[in-house]
Amino acid sequence: MASMAAALNKTPFLSQPLTKSPSSDLPIAAVSFPSKPRRRNITVHAGLIAPDGGKLVELIVDEPRRREKKHEAATELPRVELTAIDMQWMHVLSEGWASPLGGFMRESEFLQTLHFNSLRLDDGSVVNMSVPIVLAIDDEQKASIGESKRVALVDSDGNPVAILTDIEIYKHPKEERIARTWGTTAPGLPYVDEAITNAGNWLIGGDLEVLEPVKYNDGLDRFRLSPAELRKELEKRGADAVFAFQLRNPVHNGHALLMTDTRRRLLEMGYKNPILLLHPLGGYTKADDVPLSWRMKQHEKVLEDGVLDPETTVVSIFPSPMHYAGPTEVQWHAKARINAGANFYIVGRDPAGMGHPVEKRDLYDADHGKKVLSMAPGLERLNILPFKVAAYDKTQGKMAFFDPSRPQDFLFISGTKMRTLAKNKENPPDGFMCPGGWQVLVDYYDSLTPAGNGRLPEVVSA
Amino acid sequence: MASMAAALNKTPFLSQPLTKSPSSDLPIAAVSFPSKPRRRNITVHAGLIAPDGGKLVELIVDEPRRREKKHEAATELPRVELTAIDMQWMHVLSEGWASPLGGFMRESEFLQTLHFNSLRLDDGSVVNMSVPIVLAIDDEQKASIGESKRVALVDSDGNPVAILTDIEIYKHPKEERIARTWGTTAPGLPYVDEAITNAGNWLIGGDLEVLEPVKYNDGLDRFRLSPAELRKELEKRGADAVFAFQLRNPVHNGHALLMTDTRRRLLEMGYKNPILLLHPLGGYTKADDVPLSWRMKQHEKVLEDGVLDPETTVVSIFPSPMHYAGPTEVQWHAKARINAGANFYIVGRDPAGMGHPVEKRDLYDADHGKKVLSMAPGLERLNILPFKVAAYDKTQGKMAFFDPSRPQDFLFISGTKMRTLAKNKENPPDGFMCPGGWQVLVDYYDSLTPAGNGRLPEVVSA
Repeated sequence: MASMAAALNKTPFLSQPLTKSPSSDLPIAAVSFPSKPRRRNITVHAGLIAPDGGKLVELIVDEPRRREKKHEAATELPRVELTAIDMQWMHVLSEGWASPLGGFMRESEFLQTLHFNSLRLDDGSVVNMSVPIVLAIDDEQKASIGESKRVALVDSDGNPVAILTDIEIYKHPKEERIARTWGTTAPGLPYVDEAITNAGNWLIGGDLEVLEPVKYNDGLDRFRLSPAELRKELEKRGADAVFAFQLRNPVHNGHALLMTDTRRRLLEMGYKNPILLLHPLGGYTKADDVPLSWRMKQHEKVLEDGVLDPETTVVSIFPSPMHYAGPTEVQWHAKARINAGANFYIVGRDPAGMGHPVEKRDLYDADHGKKVLSMAPGLERLNILPFKVAAYDKTQGKMAFFDPSRPQDFLFISGTKMRTLAKNKENPPDGFMCPGGWQVLVDYYDSLTPAGNGRLPEVVSA
Repeated sequence: MASMAAALNKTPFLSQPLTKSPSSDLPIAAVSFPSKPRRRNITVHAGLIAPDGGKLVELIVDEPRRREKKHEAATELPRVELTAIDMQWMHVLSEGWASPLGGFMRESEFLQTLHFNSLRLDDGSVVNMSVPIVLAIDDEQKASIGESKRVALVDSDGNPVAILTDIEIYKHPKEERIARTWGTTAPGLPYVDEAITNAGNWLIGGDLEVLEPVKYNDGLDRFRLSPAELRKELEKRGADAVFAFQLRNPVHNGHALLMTDTRRRLLEMGYKNPILLLHPLGGYTKADDVPLSWRMKQHEKVLEDGVLDPETTVVSIFPSPMHYAGPTEVQWHAKARINAGANFYIVGRDPAGMGHPVEKRDLYDADHGKKVLSMAPGLERLNILPFKVAAYDKTQGKMAFFDPSRPQDFLFISGTKMRTLAKNKENPPDGFMCPGGWQVLVDYYDSLTPAGNGRLPEVVSA
């Protein structure tokens, strides 16, 4: 899936001049800023938030040593073949999104993640780490590794992509991993079906040395800024506050409302140049999510149409796979953004949630994500910005924060509803999404329709 | 189940003169003391370890106010009836075993327990809290409480036993609670079947005011020392180190070996007067565990027979119910003992573990308990003493630490094996358990045999 290329050639998204968006005229009172930030006041300061552990980990072999390492990996070491999702995690690790984690987890890190959603460092400080970043191997691979303390990680074509050193092999307690990460073991969890159920019964941890920066050659590599590159860009722009917005769906005007509203509030608080990190997830997503390439087209239109301000927005791809593990996963989403320089994190209703795979209900309480995030160990430095749900206000003809005193005026347009409309080439209510962005969705669903058949694929619930 | 009595009248166990036990002649090298204690050196110091949160919580209403509170509870408040296990948790809370927890958990404490196995206090410090201490109510009870901010908790006879104030009612996410606490949702977990599956769909948290000290009137109340009473006793004895041993099974000479060995090591380290807190769990246990009253008889014989030294041993009952939740629960067992004054905690193979209720394997990896305990947030002050497994050494004719270089010399006597022998009135190998203690077990199983039938109840695996 991913291939390697020596040169980094990444550019941040767009550079269109500022156009005031309609939504910036909306009332600003509705974002619930935390009334009492925890354990520190929000102070305006220069310089970006420090990465977890104090230093951004980068696990890519220096240019001068690549030849030697590649030779070793190709000729001297036992091999472990990576799946597509393993490659995505290797990418995540290599750029330091999981700093200070230095490779696939050993058992002590795995257990701390499962039980405490955090890791204690040698100096006694604690960093958040809620999702296991582990590499599974089967009995046969374990046997082939034997007593070696180093293995080569190879892609699906057998090309070495990394070396794992000082390895530790330990049991893969699948049921326990699933129960503690998802809070359920019900069949049908997408990541579990894709990456755990048929994975090997052992986990292999160690220090990672990635042989070259990870490239996907899908036309989107220029948007895959590493944490170090994002920090550089954010510093170049003179950001004195960075607020991250994680998403895996098309941006509608409710999202935009919230992002512009957050910026305005940050300005009111005294920040001079708050920058939005619009940070779509780029790794594995479930089959009925809109694929990354179409989402990026849609995001591009949203900026072109002036719904968000390109001057104060950085759009980049977050290379992590998606767990759909709700309150557990949202911590990972937030923690990784600290490493990219964000000191504010926007969190909405039911983050990283989905429907229960078996029962007719949401898997997670819609409020648990923001509550857990606000209490999570290792995230004390991050300012959590919970927000109220946005919906289509029929009286205003645009997206607005839901007002519980007049529920009859609001229309909730669910993911399912949005997809059904786009599939049927119907338009959503005016003001739900910018027309250019909507057209991208219509084109996407059009591309799925079997030619000449005319029947739509069945709608799958979000 | 529990009734109230105004007077505390507790005495520590026995006061027999020191008799050297045979096992004290065993080699002492086998206990694995941590080579590098975490974040502090083990220093010999006077005074007991401070309770979690700095202050031991006691939630029993002062004598002068009891009358007024009882009147309020009896006449003015909505009522919630407690189950036997709820009463045990109320007992646990009332004496401060869960300090600084001041009552049944509100949602923020419940979520922190599930996700982080710890609670962050207002001053930013962290205490361990791995097991939810919650009170479930059903729709009807919730409706009857209405808008009241205070409820009376009543026993199964309808007598008020406590008041819960400043209450918060929130959803009881049973599946998620089970998955995150046990790491499985397999049917057949004893505590789940007993206390969760049929419990209400809401949890009610709040500050607890218990109307009188909890008494069981089962002849064992004198052994139920509260953390404050234990601290007083330990201070009276001049303990400069307190090492706790949690158990829910009869004591055999393997246990005794380990306890005497620990004491000797503590003396070698420079402690002058290490005291053993032999602390059997007294709350709910599964049906095939030996009941508390028989275990207490057995422990008494073990001290009478001189296997343990009464001069340096305090035997008391830990009132908590048992979860059988392995690495998650062992943290609770350790944390509660800090509050009782213990600064050393002995942990063995597979603590608080059991067989998987569905699959033919242990539910937990036998080493995870001690690993998780050694990394658990809020337990940094506690010195964890993992130990090697003891088994019957056929060459010595006594219990000894297992020597992996000569496995053929050792006999492992499982709980199942022990029960089968006792049921059949057979003797275990000489030196496995003191004869007086063994006789108690034989008597117990004898008491289970239907008169005149002669057939034994079926052996259930531990």
